[in-house]
Amino acid sequence: MTLNIGVIGVGMIGQDHVRRLTQVLAGARVAAVTDVDLDRAKSVAAGLPQQAQVHQSGQELIASDDVDAVLVASSGPTHEEYVLACIEAGKQVFCEKPLATTREACERIIDAEVAAGRRLTMVGFMRRYDDGYRGMREVVASGDIGTPLVFHSAHRNPSVPDAVTSAGMVVDTCVHDVDTARFLLGTEVAAVQVAKPRRSSRAAEHLQDPLVLLLEMTDGALVTVEAAVNIGYGYDIRGEIVGESGTVALAESNRIVVKRDGGFGGRVPADWRERFVRAYDVELQAWVDAAAGGASTGPSAWDGYAATVVCDAGVEALESGRRIEVTLRERPGLYGVD
Amino acid sequence: MTLNIGVIGVGMIGQDHVRRLTQVLAGARVAAVTDVDLDRAKSVAAGLPQQAQVHQSGQELIASDDVDAVLVASSGPTHEEYVLACIEAGKQVFCEKPLATTREACERIIDAEVAAGRRLTMVGFMRRYDDGYRGMREVVASGDIGTPLVFHSAHRNPSVPDAVTSAGMVVDTCVHDVDTARFLLGTEVAAVQVAKPRRSSRAAEHLQDPLVLLLEMTDGALVTVEAAVNIGYGYDIRGEIVGESGTVALAESNRIVVKRDGGFGGRVPADWRERFVRAYDVELQAWVDAAAGGASTGPSAWDGYAATVVCDAGVEALESGRRIEVTLRERPGLYGVD
Amino acid sequence: MTLNIGVIGVGMIGQDHVRRLTQVLAGARVAAVTDVDLDRAKSVAAGLPQQAQVHQSGQELIASDDVDAVLVASSGPTHEEYVLACIEAGKQVFCEKPLATTREACERIIDAEVAAGRRLTMVGFMRRYDDGYRGMREVVASGDIGTPLVFHSAHRNPSVPDAVTSAGMVVDTCVHDVDTARFLLGTEVAAVQVAKPRRSSRAAEHLQDPLVLLLEMTDGALVTVEAAVNIGYGYDIRGEIVGESGTVALAESNRIVVKRDGGFGGRVPADWRERFVRAYDVELQAWVDAAAGGASTGPSAWDGYAATVVCDAGVEALESGRRIEVTLRERPGLYGVD
Amino acid sequence: MTLNIGVIGVGMIGQDHVRRLTQVLAGARVAAVTDVDLDRAKSVAAGLPQQAQVHQSGQELIASDDVDAVLVASSGPTHEEYVLACIEAGKQVFCEKPLATTREACERIIDAEVAAGRRLTMVGFMRRYDDGYRGMREVVASGDIGTPLVFHSAHRNPSVPDAVTSAGMVVDTCVHDVDTARFLLGTEVAAVQVAKPRRSSRAAEHLQDPLVLLLEMTDGALVTVEAAVNIGYGYDIRGEIVGESGTVALAESNRIVVKRDGGFGGRVPADWRERFVRAYDVELQAWVDAAAGGASTGPSAWDGYAATVVCDAGVEALESGRRIEVTLRERPGLYGVD
Repeated sequence: MTLNIGVIGVGMIGQDHVRRLTQVLAGARVAAVTDVDLDRAKSVAAGLPQQAQVHQSGQELIASDDVDAVLVASSGPTHEEYVLACIEAGKQVFCEKPLATTREACERIIDAEVAAGRRLTMVGFMRRYDDGYRGMREVVASGDIGTPLVFHSAHRNPSVPDAVTSAGMVVDTCVHDVDTARFLLGTEVAAVQVAKPRRSSRAAEHLQDPLVLLLEMTDGALVTVEAAVNIGYGYDIRGEIVGESGTVALAESNRIVVKRDGGFGGRVPADWRERFVRAYDVELQAWVDAAAGGASTGPSAWDGYAATVVCDAGVEALESGRRIEVTLRERPGLYGVD
Repeated sequence: MTLNIGVIGVGMIGQDHVRRLTQVLAGARVAAVTDVDLDRAKSVAAGLPQQAQVHQSGQELIASDDVDAVLVASSGPTHEEYVLACIEAGKQVFCEKPLATTREACERIIDAEVAAGRRLTMVGFMRRYDDGYRGMREVVASGDIGTPLVFHSAHRNPSVPDAVTSAGMVVDTCVHDVDTARFLLGTEVAAVQVAKPRRSSRAAEHLQDPLVLLLEMTDGALVTVEAAVNIGYGYDIRGEIVGESGTVALAESNRIVVKRDGGFGGRVPADWRERFVRAYDVELQAWVDAAAGGASTGPSAWDGYAATVVCDAGVEALESGRRIEVTLRERPGLYGVD
Repeated sequence: MTLNIGVIGVGMIGQDHVRRLTQVLAGARVAAVTDVDLDRAKSVAAGLPQQAQVHQSGQELIASDDVDAVLVASSGPTHEEYVLACIEAGKQVFCEKPLATTREACERIIDAEVAAGRRLTMVGFMRRYDDGYRGMREVVASGDIGTPLVFHSAHRNPSVPDAVTSAGMVVDTCVHDVDTARFLLGTEVAAVQVAKPRRSSRAAEHLQDPLVLLLEMTDGALVTVEAAVNIGYGYDIRGEIVGESGTVALAESNRIVVKRDGGFGGRVPADWRERFVRAYDVELQAWVDAAAGGASTGPSAWDGYAATVVCDAGVEALESGRRIEVTLRERPGLYGVD
Repeated sequence: MTLNIGVIGVGMIGQDHVRRLTQVLAGARVAAVTDVDLDRAKSVAAGLPQQAQVHQSGQELIASDDVDAVLVASSGPTHEEYVLACIEAGKQVFCEKPLATTREACERIIDAEVAAGRRLTMVGFMRRYDDGYRGMREVVASGDIGTPLVFHSAHRNPSVPDAVTSAGMVVDTCVHDVDTARFLLGTEVAAVQVAKPRRSSRAAEHLQDPLVLLLEMTDGALVTVEAAVNIGYGYDIRGEIVGESGTVALAESNRIVVKRDGGFGGRVPADWRERFVRAYDVELQAWVDAAAGGASTGPSAWDGYAATVVCDAGVEALESGRRIEVTLRERPGLYGVD
């Protein structure tokens, strides 16, 4: 049985998901597309191996009988509207991060799911599908390293466009580390501070690059997040959990070792596509499989909500120089325990 | 467009390919199955998400209009017949290794393709689709390490059934190293010797385990193949090419590093499924994509032929204790240059 | 020419230096010893291959004509007195850390050297003689990774006696990371904060273990120091400098890799002796060689002073929960630039 | 107590040992030197911190009452004479490899020690003092990987002078791998074959570079030795023992990891000095300590004899293309069991 998917937003990310659904994954078909730029939507539809409907709007696409489930890859501020409509329509929705751009919008989505009595939303935190992070989580769960006390995360991009702001580094970059911390440690963030190291001369003048976030988790575990987005040498994602009696860390992701010219070495990924290509595939296949069976899986609206609230606190901490406490609403039973 | 695939042989390997085509890959449908055990074929067909025809024989399946392309995963001695029938029918065929069990049978397949004027066969040497080996080949091609002079390959299995023979270690285990050597070095094997180290007490009494093969390539490069099939600790595939001015080697495949109890460490794969799961996926997707477009790709009948001839020489070397020269027929233009 | 060394304090550390001078290093002789426990001093002297004078006091030993240079390994609070006497006597002195236990005492030593017009003191920060840290410093100096922006240091001990306090973790443990930061980055510490993660259940109840220090350097570079002193799995010293365009980190120190039981791995040192045995040897040989030639080398009284002042600030930060600024006196020309 | 050492031969190696005895090690003094070039001997003596006698000949030096023990670093063909004289004089002698250049010469040395009733000779196989190889031997002894079945050794030099011959590669380069195999596996070599891979274009025309030796040990274990002496990229010594249930291998020797320009990596040693500097120090200190106590230690005359006999067989195998059996005389009880 093939899942008929409607895709809202076919910019770079949306097109990559279309490619994935069409050429990589099993069990899915892109049945409908739309975009704020209708010509782009038509062009993407024309490139598909099977016919797809081009809709005038996301709402029309969601309502279409030909669409079993929806993938939202439009701009962040539009997410709330489409996710709510999917919940209303009782259709599973995969929403690229962020779930929504404000705490209140995220809460409305949670309210809607609670009202519906079931989860319908999966948020695109692809790192949860990376073999490395999954392995780290399994080690924590095994008890082999004892209770986690500290988690060191580093998020290094080769470069970012000039338009990226310091607040954007928190909201768009560190959001992945925030979700990773929650995923690996199984607790919520209780407070955030931001330290501002010497700025890289490679960064735009307005940018506080690198940043170091300190996250205090509800059980007292501490998370350090180093974000450096003009590091030049590659896209390098590091993580190490320090437990009471051991540690677990991401290994390098290289597949070969070359020796020449006085040294040996391996490759650092060039960008997030190279580093997380498999995680994106596994993530979306998991959603397709669950949605085809009418089930929910993966990072929930609650996860999207928590990430947004923590990043908002992070921006406040960045701008105020103070430690900002994070307060989450009560977690509905729908979202179980992590 | 979905490729309708007929699967001949649905034992362990065949079922794994059915799962892959159904649940993992894009663009394919298992449209028909058959097996020497018809009940097993029916059972597999019944488990598919979409209806599939169960045929009484491989020949009938190949002839069916509902079948666009054929995957052969039956027992080795039956391969020749099915591959020849596919060539006759003008249908692309993916044949698990070996292409055929004798030099003569392989030559008949080559003759058939030459007569057909095109390649229709891909042989299942999945290592060619492993990121590590592909990276090694790219490094060789780049010239970064100079001309390859020596290739060290090690093939270690945790254990094998008692039924495995020393000759079987050459034909079924080392065949992958033989193909890898040909793939990485781009030349043919000219001669084979076998050295017999002290036997492992973990091996069955009749088994010469480990074995060390020495392959001399046509350009003089030397290949050492260590095969140890009761090594216990895991499934460990190692490879290093020594070039004139550098080397390239497979990295460990672990994704995380754990520190505890006085040490640090990573995982060695438990078996070939864990180690090569991605290679199998990438391999079969490549075939599906090519076949859907009416094209050929991957390891050819020539590669299957060369592997069979070299392994036959390996068995002769094992049994005689002598260095055995390998002679291949002239390579038809159809198979280009490597 | 053999350097006649007087050793003040022959407890565990002092005896280890005596062993080193006697059995490992070239060019030195232990000519005299003393200890607060005279019987211990006599016992150590009796075990030497050549006769050594046992002195009633450190002052008497320093004054002895048979002593060319002095090694101070007595308890911290006695350091000032002995170092000052050595400066007074014009004899080179190797002083185990701390140089002295208060800022004021350190300043008196600096004043004495300034008055003497030359350096006579070397402080035992052995990490500066570790191949790993030296390599890191060379990479920074080479410019290969650009200007350093962040330095991550981790200091993990398997366990500590119950007597160790949280303040002691800063003063006795983190002092090495403080000196390492100054050594690697070539700047001073401007401010200190301390974060307090969830406590390890393996630590004594009164102990804030682990601790995370944040050091702001005068040029804005940020240093994170994770100190975990009951980590159980080994003595693990990690360090990574993040520069503008690259990073440099300590490699693991293992010499062999073992594969067994489903994994591969190497050893983590059991304790500081194993990890830094070579650094101690190289450090003391450097001092012996310099002292024999009448020259000064290595970490200076200024380095000892700065470390003490920063650690004092660290204790204040730990106890107050606040960010504490560090103010150093003007650096005398005697101590050059780093 | 200081050991008075006489050094015979102060070319490059001899001078390095003089430096080591004078500036690095404890307990030794260079009391006398001689050399085939007396001016060189005088020049070396003049550079010593303490006075040393310059002798007209090795025999005179050995006979001198001022000399407690002798270090032989003269050319290979002279070793026999000096070692025999030391045994005659009852003085401990450290002899750089080879012990002697012919089987017969080595046997005369063994005969002399047997007649003397004690070992007086240590041969300079420094790898036995390398942390890596020692660790490998400990793992074998622990039983953690089961009985050793295969040992892979690789010996790669960046380049060699044109004067080096293929036979010289066996006798001077592979001799270390031969001794290492004996040291790690605890058995003797029973037979040797040599495989000749494609030649490196970086090697002199007359040189068979690389070479691959196959050593069969008396218990059946197989050793592969890859020697490549113009590999360019560095001095790279690799070793892996494959046991029945696990493996142990030398780790890389780098101390830091640098990330830049799309990759991460560490250093390969530039030459044997860098790689084995510590092994040389530990080796000679062990000899000094033992000799000062009148005891013998380290690789014995038997080890030197066995290495010479195996390398002779290796040269015969190289030149004849055949498998050559190795026959050793009965091992005198003096040399115990390994």
